[in-house]
Amino acid sequence: MQSGTLDVVGIGNAIVDVIASTDDDFLAKHGMNKGAMTLVDEMQAEIIYAEMGPTLVNSGGSAANTIAGIASFGGRTGFIGKVRDDALGTEFRHDIVAVGAQFTTMPATSGPATARCLVLVTPDSQRTMNTFLGASAGLGADDVDAELVRSAHITYLEGYLYDAPSAQTAFHLAAEIAHAAGRRIALTLSDPFCVNRHRDAFLQLVNRHVDVLFANYAEATALLQTDDRAAIVERLRTLTDVAALTFGEDGSLIVAGDAAIEIRAMRLKSVVDTTGAGDLYAAGFLFGLTHGASLHDCGHLGSLAAGEAISHYGARPQTNLRELAEKSTFLPSGG
Amino acid sequence: MQSGTLDVVGIGNAIVDVIASTDDDFLAKHGMNKGAMTLVDEMQAEIIYAEMGPTLVNSGGSAANTIAGIASFGGRTGFIGKVRDDALGTEFRHDIVAVGAQFTTMPATSGPATARCLVLVTPDSQRTMNTFLGASAGLGADDVDAELVRSAHITYLEGYLYDAPSAQTAFHLAAEIAHAAGRRIALTLSDPFCVNRHRDAFLQLVNRHVDVLFANYAEATALLQTDDRAAIVERLRTLTDVAALTFGEDGSLIVAGDAAIEIRAMRLKSVVDTTGAGDLYAAGFLFGLTHGASLHDCGHLGSLAAGEAISHYGARPQTNLRELAEKSTFLPSGG
Repeated sequence: MQSGTLDVVGIGNAIVDVIASTDDDFLAKHGMNKGAMTLVDEMQAEIIYAEMGPTLVNSGGSAANTIAGIASFGGRTGFIGKVRDDALGTEFRHDIVAVGAQFTTMPATSGPATARCLVLVTPDSQRTMNTFLGASAGLGADDVDAELVRSAHITYLEGYLYDAPSAQTAFHLAAEIAHAAGRRIALTLSDPFCVNRHRDAFLQLVNRHVDVLFANYAEATALLQTDDRAAIVERLRTLTDVAALTFGEDGSLIVAGDAAIEIRAMRLKSVVDTTGAGDLYAAGFLFGLTHGASLHDCGHLGSLAAGEAISHYGARPQTNLRELAEKSTFLPSGG
Repeated sequence: MQSGTLDVVGIGNAIVDVIASTDDDFLAKHGMNKGAMTLVDEMQAEIIYAEMGPTLVNSGGSAANTIAGIASFGGRTGFIGKVRDDALGTEFRHDIVAVGAQFTTMPATSGPATARCLVLVTPDSQRTMNTFLGASAGLGADDVDAELVRSAHITYLEGYLYDAPSAQTAFHLAAEIAHAAGRRIALTLSDPFCVNRHRDAFLQLVNRHVDVLFANYAEATALLQTDDRAAIVERLRTLTDVAALTFGEDGSLIVAGDAAIEIRAMRLKSVVDTTGAGDLYAAGFLFGLTHGASLHDCGHLGSLAAGEAISHYGARPQTNLRELAEKSTFLPSGG
């Protein structure tokens, strides 16, 4: 490709996070499934918002967080996702453009409002999410900017988007465009409940199209219908080229061909909010992968970025990840 | 008063903060006065927003931050301030009601948008603020809920509001209502540039109406036209009953009658963003003052709350100040 070549283009939900701290009683009272992402309609979102505490608002969305993380490492990025032409949509656009990402998706001018995710953080630093998908679910094949996808070494797909039917079509189209241009496809499984909702479609997508897979243990278990770690690893070897299997504070395992590389988790300071840990792990990993790092160093860059994300409220980095990485030994030379 | 009695009602700008980290070059390029608050019009606000980095958005406003802090200590609070009926106005209302404050001011249904403050945080943790006052400047005497003011032991006035002419009238009305009910008036001078803009009006207000005055050294210098600390202290003794003079990381000095009490600053962990340090100092102080604490302990509760505020982005507390205070020795028994 020409000089416009990007490292990673993300395709995902265009969501603004609305974050409040809460307690277990609040989750119980509202019948919320701790640690999970639940889809809600606009009315439910309004009810939860009215009852939750004072909020911090910043742009979110799993793949968009990953893109912001890659940009913070100094990577060249793009993003495809749907907002409405409203105040939250303007905020989402500002924030993704401000990190330097190319964002060409046109906002919807009618229909539901920009997506928001009500994030409730309990004292154990776990986040429980209630997402109103709104305009984001309107993403379709027409929104896949073929030139943007072709220009990126890796196109990164957000599993959550499988909850929006037209987005499934967009995923497959993007994967075909990318592979036709000799590029790679990465996917995050996003959430065990989401995997359960779309297991067969996910298996088919991974099998046909995915070169790099991100999953935590619960998501891998949901996909492969086994909680036996050895069995999961063996299945992943055959399903995809590279799989990064994450285990929260127990680190991660990178499976590629015959190799299985153990990576430890990193903690920068006290854990405040685990929102974005997985998204930022993927950011460090994909930045490394597109800059010639070994899989071992990709994993450590992922741990580093995840460690930063969990040290404050909100998923996107508040520290320059490039500067953080330069203090480590994992940054590829010239990368 | 009946059971509805409140500790503190704040009257101030109803502002949403839009916070980004930046560097000194950005401030220089835009001719910004580091550490100061500058008023901008909506067009200038749009231009700065378009060029600033990814943002965190949360409710702000100096007196509103103080009210949120007092509520976090467990105090009973109210707030008077003007938003518009737009998305940011809804966010401001949600957040002040969510902390438990009584907020009865009607939103404007026409005219300028809800106020926002673009906060730029440099690596030295200083914040430089560009404020579009919008709907907030429309606060007038009609918005002063006399019953709310009468019900509060202390009515706390935000000096920044002096930039809005109709708000000056509202201040004097609130002060007269409060004093007629045997209540006390507190004032923060807010900003040295604001004091310079309205010096005579401030001197008259302090002399006539203010029982408790908050000022940092630069603001006191601007008000009293001397930078001699001993001279400032002597003038403050005659101007008001209690004055809390703050010196940033060098702590504060409480002047009351013949007494002058030195209070040290507190630092909980590393300093991230000094936005809200003064607002939260006032919160701790006023919570103490309305709960029978000694002036010494009021000062230390102020330092404690300020120390929490500067440990993260954003001015409002992210930790329960009540729990923090319970670990200290400064909380009055039964308070």
